[in-house]
Amino acid sequence: MTVATDTLAHRVERAQQLMEEEGIDLLMIGPSSDFRYLTGHAAHTSERLTALLLPWRGRGMIVVPRLEAPLIQDLADRFELVIWDETDSPTARVAEVARDTHAESVAVNDQLWSGFLLRLQKQLPTASYENGTDILSRLRAIKDETELALLREASRRTDEAWEDFCAHETVIGKTERQVGDRLKAVMAKHGMPEIAFCIVASGPNSASPHHYLSDRVIQAGDPIVFDFGGIHEGYFSDITRTPIAGEPSDEIVKVYNIVRQAQQAAFEAIKPGVACQEVDRAARKVITEAGYGEYFIHRLGHGIGLTGHEDPYLVEGNETPMEAGMVFSDEPGIYMAGKFGIRIEDTVVVTPTGAERYNHVTRDIVTLG
Amino acid sequence: MTVATDTLAHRVERAQQLMEEEGIDLLMIGPSSDFRYLTGHAAHTSERLTALLLPWRGRGMIVVPRLEAPLIQDLADRFELVIWDETDSPTARVAEVARDTHAESVAVNDQLWSGFLLRLQKQLPTASYENGTDILSRLRAIKDETELALLREASRRTDEAWEDFCAHETVIGKTERQVGDRLKAVMAKHGMPEIAFCIVASGPNSASPHHYLSDRVIQAGDPIVFDFGGIHEGYFSDITRTPIAGEPSDEIVKVYNIVRQAQQAAFEAIKPGVACQEVDRAARKVITEAGYGEYFIHRLGHGIGLTGHEDPYLVEGNETPMEAGMVFSDEPGIYMAGKFGIRIEDTVVVTPTGAERYNHVTRDIVTLG
Repeated sequence: MTVATDTLAHRVERAQQLMEEEGIDLLMIGPSSDFRYLTGHAAHTSERLTALLLPWRGRGMIVVPRLEAPLIQDLADRFELVIWDETDSPTARVAEVARDTHAESVAVNDQLWSGFLLRLQKQLPTASYENGTDILSRLRAIKDETELALLREASRRTDEAWEDFCAHETVIGKTERQVGDRLKAVMAKHGMPEIAFCIVASGPNSASPHHYLSDRVIQAGDPIVFDFGGIHEGYFSDITRTPIAGEPSDEIVKVYNIVRQAQQAAFEAIKPGVACQEVDRAARKVITEAGYGEYFIHRLGHGIGLTGHEDPYLVEGNETPMEAGMVFSDEPGIYMAGKFGIRIEDTVVVTPTGAERYNHVTRDIVTLG
Repeated sequence: MTVATDTLAHRVERAQQLMEEEGIDLLMIGPSSDFRYLTGHAAHTSERLTALLLPWRGRGMIVVPRLEAPLIQDLADRFELVIWDETDSPTARVAEVARDTHAESVAVNDQLWSGFLLRLQKQLPTASYENGTDILSRLRAIKDETELALLREASRRTDEAWEDFCAHETVIGKTERQVGDRLKAVMAKHGMPEIAFCIVASGPNSASPHHYLSDRVIQAGDPIVFDFGGIHEGYFSDITRTPIAGEPSDEIVKVYNIVRQAQQAAFEAIKPGVACQEVDRAARKVITEAGYGEYFIHRLGHGIGLTGHEDPYLVEGNETPMEAGMVFSDEPGIYMAGKFGIRIEDTVVVTPTGAERYNHVTRDIVTLG
């Protein structure tokens, strides 16, 4: 992804405004989607610290090990490079910067390794430490037009792959892993070679929401939870469909339709101003009233952008009001241990007046041969 | 990798002994190689906390979100499961365990997300916090027989792939990316489908030690740094060779031979009891005396095991004495910005009397067509 330089500069400026509002003096962002969002650069995580150091005003710095400095030369016109050598302590350099800028409160990104934070806390014990991702989320949760276009395209390609897969692939007698490998190949064919995750959970495995791929052989009558996504220029797709291998039982059809109604009820509840938890409640109400409340064991959804799971989370307790430009999953499920599970998920964007789905493939019950 | 249950139990017991020695009351290990080392299970990292909680004595616990509990059912006979729901705070559950076990000092693994640590620190402000990976490294740095066999096999397959690649592939006129894709395919053919990393750095790019893959077209006369590794049942291989596309210049041959001598000098310095920094110095001495000291801009090497970079680090300042069973890279390099770079790397194991290489493919200058 090449993001326009003025877009990146604007993001940094808005981050600094938020820091001022929140009383954060210094933001330290290691390699992560936060780093990519603010710099346009996908740095890699390792035991050698690379980090953006952003004071609440003035120019940001990039702390980088000498041997990786050539990788970020293009950032040198926007940020000051703080290059450290193999025998230096990079967190001691961060502590120096904090002292030089009189930083009393330091925020670090969620995914920064604790090893770095612990070292910094020992080297700069007087500072207070906060979660910087929580602050940046307020920016990142509202996608701009470029981001929305990439997310829409990621979902479009994923839809196209799913339709191709359903039209041409058989599953009965194959293992989940074999079927998953085929799905990944079809995703690649439709312009999504970078797979973020691929769950194929058949029969009783479908009752395990985060089952991955096993060597279980798919049998006639199995519901199969396919939950998968790819990455398009840094932005994620995420869809779940639960087709049936052969003919579904009456119980499967019944549960399927409840999940489908719940997913639709949540979708219809989405509009600017509505609290995230209200959308979770809309789906949960349908499932609970149908008598399956105890089997909907996870939140309704999560934000999607430069990561597969980010703010806003659609979960009881999250009173954040929805805003146009938020993108997240709407994915209720019913999971009956030892029997089966059903989940239906679309990626959804909040519009000025309501919501729009990015996934358009059928939510009807599909049978696969 | 299926590790024998008694091996895992023994590791946990030794970790608890070290905790007692170091005065650590509670170890909190999120998904990571540390988690895998102690539990045998490769948990995945996400915003939902999964963690091993190990008190300095007694039974360990696994904190796990309800929707992922089915994934770790096989751990339930060895650990108590602490299952949390979507509206719970998992770090508050950790704080409860810490209070129940009267833990005053808590150690967390290096790679645990800072977001979790910051929440725990707010919920349990009276505890002191340490780096748990630093403690576990003392165990993990010495590989047992099973681990050594897997590391040896990972390197053997990687060597086999490299010989196949050199015998059958051409590079001149291809991009680094195309060549890298071919190398990955050859690795898969030799039983290493899981690639950990693959650097193909040609011509001037070879002077950037962590260059990845670009669309630069390889030209006659280019040195090409190939630094790559795969994962075999959880264990990493790591090798670098710098063949030349066509005929090397005299300067390339000169620099190549200096790096080769440095790599050999380091290898010969390895034996139990020698400080890690001494081995770095042995290589650095050769390069410095040849007049290229300023161009050897990284440490000599890093431990290899369930990760690609771990203790022991072969770097100035590390006085840790080598012990039989340590496995690490021996990889000096000379990098002249704007011109070219040369690196030669083997994976090496410390034996009771010295050292043994796990990579055996030639270190002579190889030319590729």
